[in-house]
Parts: sequence; C-alpha cells; structure tokens
Amino acid sequence: MATRLLRVPPPEELLRPLAVPERLLLGPGPSNVPRRIQAAGGRQILGHMHPEVLQVMDEIKAGIQYAFQTQNRLTLAISGSGHCAMEAALLNLLEQGDTVLVAINGIWGQRAADIARRLGANVCELLKPLGQYFTAQDIEQGLVQHKPLVLFITHGESSTGVLQPLEGLGKLCHRHGCLLLVDSVASLGGAPIFMDQQEIDVLYSGSQKVLNAPPGSAPISFSERARYHHTAPINSFFSLREGLAMLAELGLENSWKRHRANCTQLCQGLLDMGLELFVEEEKARLPTITTVRVPEGYNWKDITAFLMDNHGMEIAGGLGPTVGKVLRIGLMGCNSTSDNVERVLGALQDALKSCHRSRL
Amino acid sequence: MATRLLRVPPPEELLRPLAVPERLLLGPGPSNVPRRIQAAGGRQILGHMHPEVLQVMDEIKAGIQYAFQTQNRLTLAISGSGHCAMEAALLNLLEQGDTVLVAINGIWGQRAADIARRLGANVCELLKPLGQYFTAQDIEQGLVQHKPLVLFITHGESSTGVLQPLEGLGKLCHRHGCLLLVDSVASLGGAPIFMDQQEIDVLYSGSQKVLNAPPGSAPISFSERARYHHTAPINSFFSLREGLAMLAELGLENSWKRHRANCTQLCQGLLDMGLELFVEEEKARLPTITTVRVPEGYNWKDITAFLMDNHGMEIAGGLGPTVGKVLRIGLMGCNSTSDNVERVLGALQDALKSCHRSRL
Repeated sequence: MATRLLRVPPPEELLRPLAVPERLLLGPGPSNVPRRIQAAGGRQILGHMHPEVLQVMDEIKAGIQYAFQTQNRLTLAISGSGHCAMEAALLNLLEQGDTVLVAINGIWGQRAADIARRLGANVCELLKPLGQYFTAQDIEQGLVQHKPLVLFITHGESSTGVLQPLEGLGKLCHRHGCLLLVDSVASLGGAPIFMDQQEIDVLYSGSQKVLNAPPGSAPISFSERARYHHTAPINSFFSLREGLAMLAELGLENSWKRHRANCTQLCQGLLDMGLELFVEEEKARLPTITTVRVPEGYNWKDITAFLMDNHGMEIAGGLGPTVGKVLRIGLMGCNSTSDNVERVLGALQDALKSCHRSRL
Repeated sequence: MATRLLRVPPPEELLRPLAVPERLLLGPGPSNVPRRIQAAGGRQILGHMHPEVLQVMDEIKAGIQYAFQTQNRLTLAISGSGHCAMEAALLNLLEQGDTVLVAINGIWGQRAADIARRLGANVCELLKPLGQYFTAQDIEQGLVQHKPLVLFITHGESSTGVLQPLEGLGKLCHRHGCLLLVDSVASLGGAPIFMDQQEIDVLYSGSQKVLNAPPGSAPISFSERARYHHTAPINSFFSLREGLAMLAELGLENSWKRHRANCTQLCQGLLDMGLELFVEEEKARLPTITTVRVPEGYNWKDITAFLMDNHGMEIAGGLGPTVGKVLRIGLMGCNSTSDNVERVLGALQDALKSCHRSRL
C-alpha cells in the first residue's frame, strides 16, 4: 500500500522513558498538583459528549460559580489556558471600532491592550506605575474622558505582585454605561472576589494557580455564547473538577485567610532578611504572588538558578515590565503553607550567601 | 479582610467523588488511552519553562517530524484541540482578501470555509458528494478557475469515512502558486502521509485519535511563527509525548498496516451482516473510521444507545452532513485490534436484533 520509503526514522529520544523530576514550584505558577488532582487527570478517558463528562462539566460550572461567587448561567471552563480565556473574553465583548479602556500597571494590561488592538478596537490606556493599583478616582477619570464600552482590569497582577481593589468599580462602570472585565488568573481562591455583588460582567481565571490543577482549562463566566464544537480536553476537566472540589471542601474564606496569612509570614521574613518588598502598601500585596526587589550586587538569574539547582525549588524573576527588577515567589493552593514559607526563606538566605557579585 | 458574606455555598455535587466508568470508545474519537499514557498525564507538574519540559517539547517535535515524515523546523504541539490547530493554520496562512480554495466533501471542509470567511478571506468552495474524494483533475480545475493562495483539503474526513489521496497534490498546487494545507486529524498514524515528499505546506492532526493521548494538544508543522507566551498544558504534553513514543516504537508502517488490516476485517464483517458501507471504493475508505449506512427500519440513535447501555461501547452517528445517514466506527491506535472488531460486530448484531422498528 505505502510504496514510498520512510525518510525520517523513529527518534532515539522518544525510545527512552519520560523523565519528570519532583520539584517545589514556588514561582508565579504553575503550582504543584496534589496527588488527588494528578490521579483525576490520569483517569481513563470518556467521550466528550458522554453523560458523565456532561455531569463533570456541570460540576465544574457549580464549582466556578462558587469560586467566583456568581449565579451566572454562562459559567464554564474554556478548553485552553488562562490566556485563551482572556482572548475569549475580549473577542466576545469587543467589535471593530469599539472603545475599550485598559488599566495597565503590569504585563496583563499590556497583553489585553495588544489583543484588543488586533481585534480592531479603539484602545485607550489608563497607566499607573508598576507596583501600584488604580483608585476609584483613576478609573472614573478614565471613564469620563474615554467613554469606553469595556473596562479591562487585573485583580492579581502577577508581574508586579499587586492586588487591585475591586470594590465599587462595577457600579462605577455601569453608571458610565461600561462593562467591567476582570482578570483573576493569579488571584482566584487566594484573595476575595465576589462577581455578582461587585457587579463584574466578565471574569476569568486559570487552573494552574490556586486551584492546583494542570494548565489546559480556564474558568470563565459571562453573558455571551461560546462558538465551536471541538474535542474538549476531558482529562484536564477531570483535574479542574478535582481542584474546584478541594476548594469547595476547604471553603473560600479559609482559602483566602490561609493565602493572606502565609503571604504575611513570607513578607515579614523577607523584611527580616533586609530585603525590600516591591509593593509598598501592605493591603495592595497580592496574597498569591509576592514580589521582592532584586537586592543590590546580585543578578536575579543567579538566585533563581541557585534555588533550582541546590534546593529543587522554583521562584521566578520579573515578567515583562518587571524583568530585572524583582523576584517573584508564588504560594498558591497546596503550596501556600507555613512550611513552604520557611523553606523558601531558608533557600533564599542560602542563595544570598552564595550568589553575591562584587561590582564590575 | 472579607467583609462580604458568601452568597453561593460550596456545591453539593463537588463534595462527592469523581465518577469515571471504563468504556470501550469505538467512535470517531477520542479513543481509549493506554495505561502508560494515562500515567504520563498523571505525573507531577513542572514549570512550563523548565529544561525537562523543553526537552519533552523537543521530543514531541521529533515525534511529530517522524509521524508527519517531515524535516520542518517549525513543528510543534499546539496548546489546544485539533480544532485550534485548524484555526492556527488558517490564521497563519490567510490575510483579509486572500483567496482560499476549500475542498468540501464533509464537515471539516465546511468548518475550514467558515473559519476562513471569519478571517475575511475570499473563500471558494470545491464540492464533492459525501462519501467521495477529490481527483487531481478536480483540484486542478479549481486551481485554474479560482487562482487561490491556499488549498485546504481533509486527508481523513471523519464525517464520511473517506480517505483522500494526496499523491501529486502538492506539486500541482505549487505549479499553480498555491500552498497546500492538509487536515490529518482522523488519519495520522493510521494511513500513510509523507509531508515533505508530498510537498504539503501545512499539516496538522489531533492527539486523541491514533496517538491515543487525551485531547488538549495538537501536532502541527508549518513555516510561520507562533504568537503568544502562555502556560502550556504541560501534562497534556507528557501524554502526547508518550503517544508519539508508542508510535515510534511500533513504527509508522506497522501502524498503517494494522489500521488497514483491522478496517478490512471490520468492513468484511459489516458486509457479511448485510449492511452497506457508505464509502463504496475500497481504497477510499479511511482506515481509522468506518462509515456504514443506517439500515432501513432502524433509528441510528437506538443503535448507539443500545451499544452504550448494553455493551459499554461507544460508536457514533453521523456528523454534520452525514447525520442520520451513517453510523461511524472508530478503530484507532490501541483500539485498532482484531478483538475489538469482533466485539463491535457482535454488539451490532445484538443491536440489530433488539432495535428494529416497524414503519409507522
């Protein structure tokens, strides 16, 4: 039947077993996956239209409604990363020529503005220095000046470690005929958010942060219709379902408290080491991801490499506008423990002893 | 900190354990996932930029190059379903106003035409009755008449069970200044394809068919650049890597032979039962998905429901233009065995006894 010869041989490297070392992931995500969620992702597959999978999708919907604190009927898991959810949100809200106001105080606002521009929207940027959040006055000025159809704002800005207060923003937007779109990829489950009470119109998040599920599916809630039939990532849904179940068992308030308590302990430890936190105002610190200034006389890459090589532990450098400025430590979901705070502080102390560079 | 009260309680259904029954999936996909691939998807996560994950991505690249028989450097796994790969291919090839010729003999051509229209392309349709494939003459006429920049064609049309001959199409397209884009979601690994020798410009597939990995990542090879940074579905990549490893171990030729042999056995069994195959010409039958006409006096839904309820086995009805016309039986990857052929034939015989409806 096949008369041609194979010119590309079976690759050697695929004939060796898959190697996956265990690591403590204390960067800005993904975070470690508990055994129970791993096991869910490793279950046998079912057809994507089988009743049990539809049941899992209903359970995911209920879990997202709980995590988001919303009654929205159009609440679902996107088949893709948190980034796909951002694209889906913007694509469903914006048409060519629509005005969108994007609050930019880090990489995610920049990214949303880029996507909105590609969609042909009229993008107005509301800027704030890195490490700071927007006040209601900032937002109102922007709404009055630009008269946007949509406001995009990031609840947990993972590139700077800032937690954006959302109280009152929904009301404000609606008074000005504007929809409120919120990115909570890095904050959901780690800091309070109340979609309905805060009048958020579209809210999305990711699976691989506080929910501790592998990346590949993303919670979203809004009032428009999804588009396509495709083979949904069923095993990713099993994992996401299990991540949401663990959050439901723990309870949102307990999850928020735990993230805040461990963040506070971490910040205190960093200050005690003589390090400087990037976000000055305590209440503006994202409980899931803490940013600390790269100390003078150090290269951030030496520090992250040292932790990886000597402690099997990931923390990250900056992202986008904070590259070279900060180190980012994530404590999310099952990784948000007092024990991990001690481990990362100890490892950092070790790194600061070993990685110092005298000026050139 | 959180002064508001939770108005949405933890959902009851998430506090019960996840239920996933074992089923034999002999529909047009997803197919069953072997233990080894399940285990790979259930491994602990790593950071998406960790060297071991980059290594896995290199291994996936090598595995796809083998499965596609290509040396293309831009060969990778898309973070999404096969449908995402279709979108990525069209989005990267077409700009507003470009002419694309879409060969339509089932649902996938229709879908590609829809996406291309949304991208603002000038879409010309080349039509063929369901169950038939395009000849080189058909294609050449279309190229001469429409002078397209891109030709889209489906190698394995899963809605009709047709295998499209690709020999010579690449040369033909290039002689007319046109790029050749091929969908091999339902055929890759089950029927011969030689990307480089057949001069295919863009080729994509899915993970959940012959490769037996869960959906969530999709092989693609082409000559343009990917766009975004996002958290890639790492565990999906582990699974895909393992699916490609199993294909490399078995060998492409053996995989093709096995799919063809089991398809032949299945077709013979169906004919022996007095059923009628939808694709008349034997060589035009897709070795991975066999379409059989719904026999007179039966409702296809009764038959698929009977197999599910009484045999824990999935086969499917038609899709898009073949709804109500055919039953579709998939034998892909680990599911393509002589034993499964016997099981599905036995189950069908059982169903035909039980589901007959006298005319109303």
